[in-house]
Amino acid sequence: MDLEFRLKAAFRTSGDPTPAMDAIQEFLEGQALKVLAKGAPEGEEAKIKSWNVKDNRIDIEIVSGRYVRSHDALIRLRKPLAGKIGKEYHLGIRGIDVDEFVIKMPSEKSVGDLKLPHVRSMDYDGECITLNLDVGEAELENRVPDRILTLMEDKIREKVYGGKTEHWNLLWQSEKKAHPFEKDPTQEMLEKGWIKRGASRGQWIHGPQSTKLFRTFEKIVLEELLEPLGYQEMIFPKLVPWDVWKKSGHAKGVYPEIYYVCPPKTRDPEYWEEVADHYKVTKEVPTELIKEKIGDPIGGLCYAQCPPFWMYLQGETIPTESFPLKVFDRSGTSHRYESGGIHGMERVDEFHRIEIVWLGTKEQVVKASEELHERYMHIFNEILDLEWRKAWVTPWFMAQEGLAGVSDEQSAGTTDYEAPLPYRGEDGEWLEFQNVSVNGNKYPSGFNVKNQSGEELWSGCSGVGLERWTSAFLAQKGLDPENWPEEFRKRFGEMPDGISFF
Amino acid sequence: MDLEFRLKAAFRTSGDPTPAMDAIQEFLEGQALKVLAKGAPEGEEAKIKSWNVKDNRIDIEIVSGRYVRSHDALIRLRKPLAGKIGKEYHLGIRGIDVDEFVIKMPSEKSVGDLKLPHVRSMDYDGECITLNLDVGEAELENRVPDRILTLMEDKIREKVYGGKTEHWNLLWQSEKKAHPFEKDPTQEMLEKGWIKRGASRGQWIHGPQSTKLFRTFEKIVLEELLEPLGYQEMIFPKLVPWDVWKKSGHAKGVYPEIYYVCPPKTRDPEYWEEVADHYKVTKEVPTELIKEKIGDPIGGLCYAQCPPFWMYLQGETIPTESFPLKVFDRSGTSHRYESGGIHGMERVDEFHRIEIVWLGTKEQVVKASEELHERYMHIFNEILDLEWRKAWVTPWFMAQEGLAGVSDEQSAGTTDYEAPLPYRGEDGEWLEFQNVSVNGNKYPSGFNVKNQSGEELWSGCSGVGLERWTSAFLAQKGLDPENWPEEFRKRFGEMPDGISFF
Repeated sequence: MDLEFRLKAAFRTSGDPTPAMDAIQEFLEGQALKVLAKGAPEGEEAKIKSWNVKDNRIDIEIVSGRYVRSHDALIRLRKPLAGKIGKEYHLGIRGIDVDEFVIKMPSEKSVGDLKLPHVRSMDYDGECITLNLDVGEAELENRVPDRILTLMEDKIREKVYGGKTEHWNLLWQSEKKAHPFEKDPTQEMLEKGWIKRGASRGQWIHGPQSTKLFRTFEKIVLEELLEPLGYQEMIFPKLVPWDVWKKSGHAKGVYPEIYYVCPPKTRDPEYWEEVADHYKVTKEVPTELIKEKIGDPIGGLCYAQCPPFWMYLQGETIPTESFPLKVFDRSGTSHRYESGGIHGMERVDEFHRIEIVWLGTKEQVVKASEELHERYMHIFNEILDLEWRKAWVTPWFMAQEGLAGVSDEQSAGTTDYEAPLPYRGEDGEWLEFQNVSVNGNKYPSGFNVKNQSGEELWSGCSGVGLERWTSAFLAQKGLDPENWPEEFRKRFGEMPDGISFF
Repeated sequence: MDLEFRLKAAFRTSGDPTPAMDAIQEFLEGQALKVLAKGAPEGEEAKIKSWNVKDNRIDIEIVSGRYVRSHDALIRLRKPLAGKIGKEYHLGIRGIDVDEFVIKMPSEKSVGDLKLPHVRSMDYDGECITLNLDVGEAELENRVPDRILTLMEDKIREKVYGGKTEHWNLLWQSEKKAHPFEKDPTQEMLEKGWIKRGASRGQWIHGPQSTKLFRTFEKIVLEELLEPLGYQEMIFPKLVPWDVWKKSGHAKGVYPEIYYVCPPKTRDPEYWEEVADHYKVTKEVPTELIKEKIGDPIGGLCYAQCPPFWMYLQGETIPTESFPLKVFDRSGTSHRYESGGIHGMERVDEFHRIEIVWLGTKEQVVKASEELHERYMHIFNEILDLEWRKAWVTPWFMAQEGLAGVSDEQSAGTTDYEAPLPYRGEDGEWLEFQNVSVNGNKYPSGFNVKNQSGEELWSGCSGVGLERWTSAFLAQKGLDPENWPEEFRKRFGEMPDGISFF
């Protein structure tokens, strides 16, 4: 069978509709048919299965397919029907009651036992999934049934065809290089005291040597890329509330990897006295009690870095001559709840990134991304002397919403920069240490930013992960500055003494 | 009446103690009296009120005052008693059962209705607070009753005498200056588009102008203070787990102002499907459901900035010639849940700070703090041309544990730097924009860091709050670079164009 919506509902009237019976019949058997066919292919119009009047209600049952859906049909009928009975019978329509709303959708497989909001029950008979919705007037108006349908269709597609695999398409590759170093650089850094593990998961404390490496990478990006290309520095917030992730799309799927932030329910010291007292007596922090005393999560720690910037532009119209607008941020940490086990510097829960963002017309944005690619190539080839490649991959903005494949929009997408880590061996996985993304109109549209000219706005972003650069560079070059390329060494200067232990 | 501990407990024996009755009596009426008097003033020894043997137990009731406390007395008796009955009667002591433990403490006032761990009940009769403890052998060994006593005495002192007030003692004051500007700089920055409110509470997004101000302050601190004084840059972690705050002392009282961090209970996408589906259908993030799906808080966002650094040194012995050790961090944001209402740049929930830390012998640490004071004076007088003063105040490490007054240790404490904000008027409150603290041996001791020489280690820290510097500087000088001091202007350079809106 095909997709079917079956809705039993009623228009609540301001008085007894019985006197208007004939007028209602005339409407439902005449004008209404045109209303319910509008925009649907022949034979696909919504159909009124039955109707009745009683107790200040006009009951109506509508069955439809995909085109003019039952709930849309009902809403379409409201106004002309109200006109009809209002003028002649002084009856108003006060609202809509939904008695039953069932969606049947064909599926080769069950999607499992899901808890969806506004879904009372979900059954699978081997051919069809039957959804019994729990919706009222507001949900019909807000198109909740459509969102449920889309979501279910995505899930069925995934069950039947499996998740689409990550896209990966080689764009450029450097020549193969001999690497003077074959060890795991994290282990070496630990042994030399450049870094130590922090007290939290996937977190490092960087001593003076490692910090100087980060700051040298930062200086190179500033001097060789950001300044010549005219990027201005800004400071983006680092605590990200839901409102930002709703607009950026992250609210669709980023939950498994977020470090959530909860505020105290109050700052009143008396409220917290019990917690402090517990600690003072037992020397243990009562985390269960604290969880009761904090509010629901207001959002999480910085994950993708650019979304909170967009609140600066939200709702604004920007003069045409300002484009391309080019900014960057390097004001704080990003955090991801990574998969367990002990990893080195190449996969961390807390990391440092220079985030670069640009926006303008499609042409300006694509051009700016090409300029960045050129400058990166200069840095990786002539200063860091890396072996690396770049590939066209599933865009990060899709991956972070739980999607795979490539963007529908040809020029939009993500280029990953990858480097081999010699200690992983010949066939070892390469490390993504860098990306450049053209995000199409996603952000300007999500945050409602307009170009004065009326032209569509696009944007792009590029994240320079300092831990990743460090991993790639040290894995290939080792920790001894003697083996570092001259162009890098002269920018790095003297190795600091660091802190020694006994 | 005086403080009284009354403990009814029993030593569990490995067999029937009746045959040893005489030996036990001889011990309790002879040797035991010396054991219970040791270290107590005359007449203040712990007293055995009664004792008995039955059912593989030696029951004993001990009453004491402050000196040899009942639970200490009981533990002191265990070993010699075991020796006595072990040798002659082959009886072992298997453990201790606590039948009743009551502490009576005089108090002029009730301390209210408190929930304390290991306290079964708490009553006040107008003269005395009576605590009925719920403790066993482990708690006696771990000195839980002592911690409860200390905590209660602190609370009584606070009830009777009130909280000690913040200490404040003027150390130095610049001449009064004429200020070209009298407006609220935050409002001016907002109007000129230098900053916008972030999506979270007390959070700002900094445009290029304001960011350049921050970076110029940073450059001044680097060039005029950190580099000449030989400080090395490090990167301190920004997510702070409990373990760090237990060692730093913050676990004693910082709870009302923390932004708490909770990890997902698992990264399994299926576990989070319900949350993502809820959002996709309703367009609302189900924060209550998320709270059920995240773990207990593992700690919070960076609050004081230097504590997580100390994990780098934890448990280490450092060569004598390394001191004074001097480091700083500027790698990310700090977060405090500040009191409600709308504030400007001078009081924010998310802020940026350069944190400076040094350690060495007492003399080295005090000397390093004096050098910092000199450089700060140079910066504030000769580059920023501020009106300011400094004062000796309640040390931050005491304030953040909920204490007031000054440190017991003369040379240890906090100096606050304060500046008038002309828009607040002649009598307006001055803004703390900076501090320098000598923290005594608190951190080396809390994190168990040793000097190879065996000499006691001290440490100090100083926080340069960029939002606070901005507030003080712009409040006195205004936003027009024409009115800025020449020495500052030449370091700042050209004002960036920033982003304009239509």
